[in-house]
Amino acid sequence: MTSTTYRLSWVTSANDHRDFPLQNLPFGIFSPEGLPPRGGVAIGDFIFDLQTAVENSLFSGEALSAAQAASGKSLNAFFSLPGNARLALRERLLELLDTDYAQLKNLQAQGEALLRPASVCKMHLPAKIGDYTDFYTGIHHAINVGKLFRPDNPLLPNYKYVPIGYHGRSSTIYPSGLAVRRPMGQTLKPGQEVPAHTPSARLDYELELGIWIAGNNQQGEAIHIADAYKHIAGFCLLNDWSARDLQAWEYQPLGPFLAKNFATTVSPWVVTAEALAPYRTAQPARPEGDPQPLPYLYDAADQTNGAFDIELEVLLHTTAQKAQGLPPHRLGLSNTLNMYWTVAQLITHHTVNGCSLRSGDLLGTGTLSGPTSDSLGSLLELSNGGKQAIKLDSGEERCFLADGDEIIMLARCKKDGHPSIGFGECRGVILAAK
Amino acid sequence: MTSTTYRLSWVTSANDHRDFPLQNLPFGIFSPEGLPPRGGVAIGDFIFDLQTAVENSLFSGEALSAAQAASGKSLNAFFSLPGNARLALRERLLELLDTDYAQLKNLQAQGEALLRPASVCKMHLPAKIGDYTDFYTGIHHAINVGKLFRPDNPLLPNYKYVPIGYHGRSSTIYPSGLAVRRPMGQTLKPGQEVPAHTPSARLDYELELGIWIAGNNQQGEAIHIADAYKHIAGFCLLNDWSARDLQAWEYQPLGPFLAKNFATTVSPWVVTAEALAPYRTAQPARPEGDPQPLPYLYDAADQTNGAFDIELEVLLHTTAQKAQGLPPHRLGLSNTLNMYWTVAQLITHHTVNGCSLRSGDLLGTGTLSGPTSDSLGSLLELSNGGKQAIKLDSGEERCFLADGDEIIMLARCKKDGHPSIGFGECRGVILAAK
Repeated sequence: MTSTTYRLSWVTSANDHRDFPLQNLPFGIFSPEGLPPRGGVAIGDFIFDLQTAVENSLFSGEALSAAQAASGKSLNAFFSLPGNARLALRERLLELLDTDYAQLKNLQAQGEALLRPASVCKMHLPAKIGDYTDFYTGIHHAINVGKLFRPDNPLLPNYKYVPIGYHGRSSTIYPSGLAVRRPMGQTLKPGQEVPAHTPSARLDYELELGIWIAGNNQQGEAIHIADAYKHIAGFCLLNDWSARDLQAWEYQPLGPFLAKNFATTVSPWVVTAEALAPYRTAQPARPEGDPQPLPYLYDAADQTNGAFDIELEVLLHTTAQKAQGLPPHRLGLSNTLNMYWTVAQLITHHTVNGCSLRSGDLLGTGTLSGPTSDSLGSLLELSNGGKQAIKLDSGEERCFLADGDEIIMLARCKKDGHPSIGFGECRGVILAAK
Repeated sequence: MTSTTYRLSWVTSANDHRDFPLQNLPFGIFSPEGLPPRGGVAIGDFIFDLQTAVENSLFSGEALSAAQAASGKSLNAFFSLPGNARLALRERLLELLDTDYAQLKNLQAQGEALLRPASVCKMHLPAKIGDYTDFYTGIHHAINVGKLFRPDNPLLPNYKYVPIGYHGRSSTIYPSGLAVRRPMGQTLKPGQEVPAHTPSARLDYELELGIWIAGNNQQGEAIHIADAYKHIAGFCLLNDWSARDLQAWEYQPLGPFLAKNFATTVSPWVVTAEALAPYRTAQPARPEGDPQPLPYLYDAADQTNGAFDIELEVLLHTTAQKAQGLPPHRLGLSNTLNMYWTVAQLITHHTVNGCSLRSGDLLGTGTLSGPTSDSLGSLLELSNGGKQAIKLDSGEERCFLADGDEIIMLARCKKDGHPSIGFGECRGVILAAK
């Protein structure tokens, strides 16, 4: 008998782990020290090595096929499997890692070849990303940014009908931990008519949820909203680094380009929809007077149970804070319930014109600010367009990011009767421009 | 003695071929009937099979490495080679296919395994495209489109400083010949406030040059303009299919998305910079009063010899024209000299912020309209925003594309003392919406 109402793992560090209890079991690609990349599953302070597990015959049937697909150097093949095959692997992993697993001694005898200490492993991107799309579903963010340009009319007329999105760059998506170089680019100083080629002076982060796509749709075939969830492989944190001065000068008429495509950082673990099932909830009601979604974007089940209640946190750790032994400063605490559109609506809208999604594609939700000043998802909003500096305990101030600043994003899902689960870190430090 | 001043091929159909004389030798990926995809080179009405040629020991040294890299199912590995290796293969192919080749009988004895009749081969995309970027370098197009929205101020202030571009979708780039389904999407009828989910009623093409990228730059490392040409693997024709009604409703504030990402068609042959060397010329002088490029975008050699003189043609063939035995109607005849920025400037600007390009990435120039009404590159411009229909010999009229319409794009390079070379076709027919 345990004192909790939920299952525990014999990997004891999992049982009070911030991110990776037995109930999470996210998939990722990692390299153990000196070994090539392979697939694994996070459990407490360890990574369960799927390649070793396959070699040691821990799987059979559908779970074996799935484990084989997930044990290579990217998860694309795994994401291409039907949902029941991916689920069969999860079920078997829940069994293998449970305290009550019958042949526990056999597993423990496999030592570090099976359970790699996460601290000595290097994480990679979980998939080869075909295309990356970034949406704009954070309505508070859209209003806050819109106000900077159009104080009386912050939201454009299409916002409440169209899940606004655009294509980002897949070549510059990096896993958590990789340093990000401050971009050079064209900027136009206030009052000037001629731009200069300078380092960005208004470097920012954006707090987003990332969605990994499972399965392809064919050219010309839309994904019906009732089928959209089948196309979710899982979720991650996503930092859409943004150079606001480059953006202001370049973005008309075709949208953001160099202001965004120098780097995007993701947390490397793919947290599955199954792990997040307890945190699914109703899509928050639209404000009074807002239009209903067009029929192709409306599904009763999606409205009732298609939103996720995931707390999102963004922290700043400066060089001075680190030198003074100060903890990171919390810049904002938000929630995925600030999405105006559900993930299913994003997927369906993306394909309504016949556009093909492919396994391993990545969607970003757009910046998920909340309605209050302590729940904002970017410095642009926090500093009111660079006009009000944020004060830190180190005595420093920030309107935008300085060299050496580190941004850390975290996620947390909480519900009575369940252990809290997280996503791992999405972390990046700013290097000086070249 | 030949009657021309240039070299001829023993593949006699090459010697008066519209597109593929000996001097062209573009690379592509094709499937001979019943065989898997492999690399080949277009020569007249045939495709020189690089896989057969490698097996039959026609190459050695650097040319052999390059032929091996080019003979697989995509050209990415070939594009990753240094320029001199790619050039060594071209030099050897020029030698092998020349009328004066010493061991001609040996080649001819290899028959259709070496020279595949192009008419029975299926063409594929030449490379696995990592990222696709579309620019907006056609200044006449930018002015024409800008006038529809802002008659007095068609060009935005950034246009003459920033090579405007945005990311397109790589999953929906198709080789010439694949039919394109009319997209569904949200459209807002004039005078309405609520959009509807309808087939696009304003379907259009855009006439563009495509540029295939060779070699990667590392994260954070800009490509200097003097080095930019080393990153060109070659060129193609590109049709940036566009749904103008979807575009008008969705594109603010983040740019085109579903209006473009349902399909992009490219001609499948990669015409190399070496083949186009005779047609390189000075970048046309900027109009009086225009600013000079910022220093990072300025290179004297690029200004002197960085533009290409390539004639671009777009034709419309409707179902009724075909039924009446009428030839296609020429919609426009333009030229790549209508680019406001050189290809080197596009590559350098794209990487100025440290954005990584990768071998096999694709750039589009944007619509290359000329200054006159017979040189426009889209129906949006030809029909003045849908207000003036184009009359066809079949008795039909068009403001935008009808189901069954076929768009055919062609390119032609001409210069005294050289055979004219072309790009092959970029062709696509419109299917009714689903």
